[in-house]
Amino acid sequence: MKESLLVIKIGGNIIDDEGKLSLFLKDFASIKGHKILVHGGGKMATRVAEVMGISQQLIDGRRITDAETLKVITMVYAGYINKNIVALLQAAGCNAVGLCGADGNVIKAHKRIHPVTDYGFVGDVDEVNAGLIQSLVEQNVSLVFSPLTHNGQGLLLNTNADTIAQEIAKAMSVLYEVSLVYCFEKPGVLMNATDDNSVIKNITLTSFIDLKEKNIIREGMIPKLQNAFAALEAGVKVVTIGHADNLQQLIHQQSGTSIINE
Amino acid sequence: MKESLLVIKIGGNIIDDEGKLSLFLKDFASIKGHKILVHGGGKMATRVAEVMGISQQLIDGRRITDAETLKVITMVYAGYINKNIVALLQAAGCNAVGLCGADGNVIKAHKRIHPVTDYGFVGDVDEVNAGLIQSLVEQNVSLVFSPLTHNGQGLLLNTNADTIAQEIAKAMSVLYEVSLVYCFEKPGVLMNATDDNSVIKNITLTSFIDLKEKNIIREGMIPKLQNAFAALEAGVKVVTIGHADNLQQLIHQQSGTSIINE
Repeated sequence: MKESLLVIKIGGNIIDDEGKLSLFLKDFASIKGHKILVHGGGKMATRVAEVMGISQQLIDGRRITDAETLKVITMVYAGYINKNIVALLQAAGCNAVGLCGADGNVIKAHKRIHPVTDYGFVGDVDEVNAGLIQSLVEQNVSLVFSPLTHNGQGLLLNTNADTIAQEIAKAMSVLYEVSLVYCFEKPGVLMNATDDNSVIKNITLTSFIDLKEKNIIREGMIPKLQNAFAALEAGVKVVTIGHADNLQQLIHQQSGTSIINE
Repeated sequence: MKESLLVIKIGGNIIDDEGKLSLFLKDFASIKGHKILVHGGGKMATRVAEVMGISQQLIDGRRITDAETLKVITMVYAGYINKNIVALLQAAGCNAVGLCGADGNVIKAHKRIHPVTDYGFVGDVDEVNAGLIQSLVEQNVSLVFSPLTHNGQGLLLNTNADTIAQEIAKAMSVLYEVSLVYCFEKPGVLMNATDDNSVIKNITLTSFIDLKEKNIIREGMIPKLQNAFAALEAGVKVVTIGHADNLQQLIHQQSGTSIINE
């Protein structure tokens, strides 16, 4: 039987709130067994870009990454956020190592080719090399990934953190029984966006299509769920989406929304 | 017999010059065998701090690291510089992984206590944990270290890159036959600061004291050489200081200044 591996993604308001992040990381550190953390950090990158006088553009919730924005992202994601998370996890007794996709050639990508929009230095993932990840996981290292990949030709690329989490979960599911958990600022996928008590417990591919047509699931939640279904299809055991405050319940599917096969 | 391990430090003008850095990294990538790179990056950090409106202060060539400066340093050193070096090394066929001292608890330090000057968030190294470094080195990973350490209580600390290189070299000399190479913008330690042809081939502890008294060796070169002698004393085989353009010669002591036992 395969050993278990948790792949947990945090983003949005959690990273932006020092107190919440600190509590979350203590929860993460206390989880027994193999675990990987993937973080975003868009809000802080936006703030730093503002201070540096670099203008930002978003299309469909995705950042247009020009050369200057790529610099900011590399500084904020792979530097400030990643290393502070690692230091906080070390303080909580969790032996963390922070990586981006260029480290150990772990996540190779290509610059996105899009018929209409030039997203700039945005990477679509080609390949996750599970070998180095496995070697570190087996040494009881908890890996912390910033959402950067590389093209193998010296270029770093900005890649959606949800996608990074999904691709790592997929690649590792060959070796481990992988649970993928997306933590964000809501208690799950909601029937009614203004009612935090309207969490949808389970979503199958059929109900997803239905909820999307009814405009209940929309905007940033659509790629999140598309990623979840792609992960299930590739062998990930379960995908759960919920509030970062409830990490312990989320990892046991006692909170949030579970994305499941029909 | 122990295997060989090279610990190479670059800083100053090399990192600041894209063309030179790229050539240097190709040279580094072409070196056979186990190797570790340690980088600084003060000039870029100063530029980013200026753009962000954060004022900088240096005492004896060492940056006073207030909370805002620590943020900039974490972004620039561990983020921008470290990950771009890793991506460029990957492009040159060298399987690099970028770390700071918090990653894997590799370099633990304490906040400097100084009777006169408050250096701020500056770390003096307590301990290098060679285990994870060795495990990655044995997997033919070339480690790239940014000059940040941590105190084990969640705080990142700015640590002189020369010191980082020296401490890693010392710790690894228990396991490997370590050569420590300091690359900078001069061809070696000079008898006459304005004459690049006046390289001193060898320096012993006795000649160091003499050259220091004559004010030939001064300023930033003093801690560099003090580090070198401490490294020799702790078991490092040889320390060489020279120009980054001559890396291939430097690693064979055919260029630069060699710091040797009496």
